Amino acid sequence: MSAARAVVLVSGGLDSATVLAIARAAGRDCYALSFDYGQRHRIELAAAARVAAALGAREHRTMRIDFAGIGGSALTDRSIAVPETASAGIPVTYVPARNTVFLALALGWAEVLGAAEIHVGVNAVDYSGYPDCRPEFIAAFERLARLATRAGVEGGALEICAPLIGLSKAGIIARGVELGVDYGLTISCYQPDESGRACGRCDSCRLRRAGFAAAGIADPTVYQPGR
Amino acid sequence: MSAARAVVLVSGGLDSATVLAIARAAGRDCYALSFDYGQRHRIELAAAARVAAALGAREHRTMRIDFAGIGGSALTDRSIAVPETASAGIPVTYVPARNTVFLALALGWAEVLGAAEIHVGVNAVDYSGYPDCRPEFIAAFERLARLATRAGVEGGALEICAPLIGLSKAGIIARGVELGVDYGLTISCYQPDESGRACGRCDSCRLRRAGFAAAGIADPTVYQPGR
Repeated sequence: MSAARAVVLVSGGLDSATVLAIARAAGRDCYALSFDYGQRHRIELAAAARVAAALGAREHRTMRIDFAGIGGSALTDRSIAVPETASAGIPVTYVPARNTVFLALALGWAEVLGAAEIHVGVNAVDYSGYPDCRPEFIAAFERLARLATRAGVEGGALEICAPLIGLSKAGIIARGVELGVDYGLTISCYQPDESGRACGRCDSCRLRRAGFAAAGIADPTVYQPGR
Repeated sequence: MSAARAVVLVSGGLDSATVLAIARAAGRDCYALSFDYGQRHRIELAAAARVAAALGAREHRTMRIDFAGIGGSALTDRSIAVPETASAGIPVTYVPARNTVFLALALGWAEVLGAAEIHVGVNAVDYSGYPDCRPEFIAAFERLARLATRAGVEGGALEICAPLIGLSKAGIIARGVELGVDYGLTISCYQPDESGRACGRCDSCRLRRAGFAAAGIADPTVYQPGR
C-alpha cells in the first residue's frame, strides 16, 4: 500500500519546516506548497525550496497570488513599515484573509492529488495576533472543506492538520530538533536583506529568537551585522 | 451617509451580472472582482469589464490565480474536453475548490475596503452539480469569514449574500430583465470562439438557452454558425 498523501504548506519559515518534518515522520507522502504573494520577504521562497528538498517532500510547487493588488498589509505594501516593537491588537503585518486563501488553494491541489490531509503550521504564538491562526478558524475551515469538495460530497474525509497549534515557539523548536530539522535552512524574518540575513527586530525575528533562547538551543539564524 | 460597500464577484456570465444589478438596486456601493485563472473561456473577462461598467460598479479588479498549475478540470486543462451532453454526478468542468478560493480572495479585498458584504452568484441550477454552490457551503463560508478576519474579531458583521441560490435560471433571467440587465453583454459559454460567440452545446450554454426559453424572453446570445 502506498503512503497517504498530504499537502503541506511550506513558507520557508521555522514553523512550516517543523510541520513538514512531523508529517514525514508520520509516514505521509508530502506535497509541499508555497505562495508567492508579493511578500517583501520573497527570499523565504528559496528557503521553502531548500526545506522541501531537505525533508523529502515528493514535490514542491509555488503558486502566485495577487495579494499586492489588495493591499492593506505591511507584508505586501511597501508604504506600510514593518513594526520593530510589539503592539496591541492585530499587527499591521496581518495579510487580510491570507490563511483562508492559502488553505483554499491547498484544498484545490489536495482534491486533484486525492490527498485527504492538509498540514499547516499555525500555532499558539501567532494565535495571539492573527485571527486566522486560531483553533476555531481551523475547525471552521475543515468543516467548509468537507462541504466544498468532490471528496467531501462523495463521502471521503478531509482533515486540516495543525500540529503546532498548541505549542509555544520553544516547544516547536524542540520538536523539530528532535526530528532533525536544520533550522539554518529556514528564514522567518519579515525584512531580511538580499542575502537572507535576518533583521532581528521584526515580530517574527523576536518570536524566533526568544524561542531558541527558551528552548535552550543555539540559534542558527544569521542576523544582519549589529542585530 | 455613504452607501454600504459590497464586493461582488463578477465573472462576465449571466448569473453574476444579475447579482450585481440586485446589489446596485439595493443601493450598495459595488466593488466588482473577477478572476483570471487560466480558464479556457478567458474572453469572459472582457464581458466582466463591460458588465461592471454598464451596471455602475465603483471599481473593477481582475486578480490572477494559478489554477492551471493544479489541473484537474476541463475549464483549466486543455487536455480534458468540455462535455457537450449532460452527465451524472459532479461535472468535469468543476474546478477544485474554485468558489472557496474566489470567496477567500473577495474576503481579503472586503477586509481592506471595510465592506461588510460579499455578493456571489451561486444558484440552484449549479447546485445540482458543483459541491461549492450549495447553500450549506455558503453558510459554512460565512461562518469561516467571521472567524477569519479582523472585522470578525473586532465584532463587525460579514455577510455572504447569494441572492440567486433559490432561483431557477429562468427566474434569474426574469429578475435581471426587470432590473434592466442587458444579457447581450454577458458570456456564459465554456468554449466560445475568438469573437465570443457561444458553442450552444456545453452545460453552461444549455442551461442558459433553456433559461431564456422557460422565461419566455428572447435569447440575445450570439451563437457560432449552425449552433
